[in-house]
Amino acid sequence: MTYRMVDLIQKKRDGEILDKAEINWMIESYVTGAVPDYQMSAFAMATYFKGMTSEEIADLTMAMVKTGEQIDLSDIPGIKVDKHSTGGVGDKVSIILVPLVASFGVPVAKMSGRGLGHTGGTLDKLESIPGYRIEYSIEEFKAQVRDIGLSIIGQSDDLVKADKLLYALRDVTGTVDQIPLIASSIMSKKIASGADAILLDVTVGNGAFMKNIDDARILARTMVDLGNAVGRKTVAVITNMNQPLGYAVGNHNEIAEAVEVLTGGSTKEFRTYIAVLAQIMLQLAGVEKTTEEIIANFDNGQAYEKLMEMIAAQGGDASNISEPLQTKYIVEITADQHGFIEKLGAMDVGLVAMKLGAGRATKADSIDFQAGINLHAKIGDAVSPTDVIATLYSNQPIGDALIAEFKSAVNIGSEQKEYKEILEIIR
Amino acid sequence: MTYRMVDLIQKKRDGEILDKAEINWMIESYVTGAVPDYQMSAFAMATYFKGMTSEEIADLTMAMVKTGEQIDLSDIPGIKVDKHSTGGVGDKVSIILVPLVASFGVPVAKMSGRGLGHTGGTLDKLESIPGYRIEYSIEEFKAQVRDIGLSIIGQSDDLVKADKLLYALRDVTGTVDQIPLIASSIMSKKIASGADAILLDVTVGNGAFMKNIDDARILARTMVDLGNAVGRKTVAVITNMNQPLGYAVGNHNEIAEAVEVLTGGSTKEFRTYIAVLAQIMLQLAGVEKTTEEIIANFDNGQAYEKLMEMIAAQGGDASNISEPLQTKYIVEITADQHGFIEKLGAMDVGLVAMKLGAGRATKADSIDFQAGINLHAKIGDAVSPTDVIATLYSNQPIGDALIAEFKSAVNIGSEQKEYKEILEIIR
Repeated sequence: MTYRMVDLIQKKRDGEILDKAEINWMIESYVTGAVPDYQMSAFAMATYFKGMTSEEIADLTMAMVKTGEQIDLSDIPGIKVDKHSTGGVGDKVSIILVPLVASFGVPVAKMSGRGLGHTGGTLDKLESIPGYRIEYSIEEFKAQVRDIGLSIIGQSDDLVKADKLLYALRDVTGTVDQIPLIASSIMSKKIASGADAILLDVTVGNGAFMKNIDDARILARTMVDLGNAVGRKTVAVITNMNQPLGYAVGNHNEIAEAVEVLTGGSTKEFRTYIAVLAQIMLQLAGVEKTTEEIIANFDNGQAYEKLMEMIAAQGGDASNISEPLQTKYIVEITADQHGFIEKLGAMDVGLVAMKLGAGRATKADSIDFQAGINLHAKIGDAVSPTDVIATLYSNQPIGDALIAEFKSAVNIGSEQKEYKEILEIIR
Repeated sequence: MTYRMVDLIQKKRDGEILDKAEINWMIESYVTGAVPDYQMSAFAMATYFKGMTSEEIADLTMAMVKTGEQIDLSDIPGIKVDKHSTGGVGDKVSIILVPLVASFGVPVAKMSGRGLGHTGGTLDKLESIPGYRIEYSIEEFKAQVRDIGLSIIGQSDDLVKADKLLYALRDVTGTVDQIPLIASSIMSKKIASGADAILLDVTVGNGAFMKNIDDARILARTMVDLGNAVGRKTVAVITNMNQPLGYAVGNHNEIAEAVEVLTGGSTKEFRTYIAVLAQIMLQLAGVEKTTEEIIANFDNGQAYEKLMEMIAAQGGDASNISEPLQTKYIVEITADQHGFIEKLGAMDVGLVAMKLGAGRATKADSIDFQAGINLHAKIGDAVSPTDVIATLYSNQPIGDALIAEFKSAVNIGSEQKEYKEILEIIR
């Protein structure tokens, strides 16, 4: 069956529903170039206004999956659980979670991405470990997961060709911010990666792509339904991204913080947050554990061991992994008043970290792994005027404007606010 | 000032208003290729949903005018009035109106287009006159209008480059049917053609682009306001296109019908319809005439003389201009019952004429000038079973399916319906 793309655009524009054959034809034809960008962008704008049914989103996602390699993990024993975060500031969760889950014998084969703008990327953080290889063949990737139970590598270019094309197009045509295309972009990559089950971390708030809980809930619900509809058990956690996750924002320092958590350090709240995520991933793999049992694998060194195994297997040198940041310029930020931290804006903190050298303003920029921010207080913490609430690290001079920018991210007041990491769990 | 197109797309998508500088930049950049098709199509889809203010439409139109040559008619004495029809079936109005208006000493310099699908084109009809030149340089065009007071030629390729690009793009991206882009497309060409005043014939109904009176009224009002806002006196007539205009649908036969009207023939209704349009064009040029005075120029041969002058000046041979159609196949359609014509669907009649060879299914098709339909009865006319209501002419065999298709366009019933050509005049 063949179609005319203009008819499909008009159908969507007029609020009609496309069937699976139409969607398959459209995506296949887009990848071959038979449907040009100018028709696909008009279609994307029409979906911005008219949306898609859950069936259309599932059809779109599976059509996209078919445009690239699909990794077959079936020769690795057990239920393979993948995890995806919609991105945030200080989000080193995967680097803790993957070895933690693997320490319970559940294999994790994860592909990660890079950071842009105020958000960091798991891949960049791992590359701060000297020698750590992020480019693997699919066979090497599978072999490592079979051998030691875990691997985190870079997203393969051979997966979901349609997503790369479509994402680049949406980026320049004002068609990024819409649930159907976001959901199919994320889920197509996870499905092509071969996972049997998926934990989605949908971040929400000032430092996240989704700014309000309603949008986050709709995105989470859409992806959970989509995953389940196509035979992948899927659960979503909605994570509060109004302040950075944990205390380190950067690259090397986030790896150091991951090691700290994996060896039983950091705060009870942060350990518990990770343990809840791990509990869901383990459940998805058919393994029931209490959060206490999970946290025990921090204290007994088993989760840490898995990280060390993974780093060694991927050629990384972990000898300096817990060293403090070393930069030419260091600025300590003091509270300057009594009170409680009421606000610690994740977006602003992320942008300051980027300007210190820890992130990229554009895709072509390079990263200074030693640059970044260590936070010493978070929302709800009491502070005194001389308390250092954060330390900024950079190899470029840190100007007053940047210091002021950091300070504007922080509010200190009289109210001791509660702050929860996990806002909702959507199954 | 420079902009990012993605920001302008998002602005429009979010219902904000673009200013003149933004619109100028966008259209200029589109014509140079700096803004690619895939961004412009997303923008066009956003305007489909969000519309444009009358100021935006005026800014867009003038930005488009600047992307090509602008004809200066100021060295031709008098107020130059142009006329544009949004297209229909049996629409030979320009071929009658231009010489009629010119016969009162008002110069008319008109560029016309071709037909596609069920609609005919003035240019195709004129080309049925052997030798008639439709390609002129701007200087030749102006010289002829200066010398004999009228000329109808093909649209110059040098005018409004943005319109050609944008129209081709809209055609394949589901973004044709929207008032702002229709209005700016039509008006930019009229303004670039140098007219001081413009009569718009906005057709409405089954055989027209606008299917209902509300849409036609909005389009007419939009264009009238736009023309007046940019200093061109503009009036719109809304013409009923539920049945074909006049009695001939084709090319050679429409020219013959034009000659018939110009020499005082045809029906009183059709002569009066043309006279009302001429009256408005004359008014726009500052010449007040009653419809009786105007119709007198049919009967005294002066309007016909102007047509003959124009054809001669443009190299045409008018010797066989009033000959009946001559084709290999001729089919007479009888009423087969007593009653009144209640329906004579313009769209279906136009499509049948196209299939007989009188029109084009695609732009690449060629036209048989002798093919077409002569109607012998119209809405409101009483018929008896043996009355021939139409004759079909083709050089290809006329099959039963096509005859049935024509018959399905006609309803004969007991009610004698009134039919008005002019539904409204919008000033």
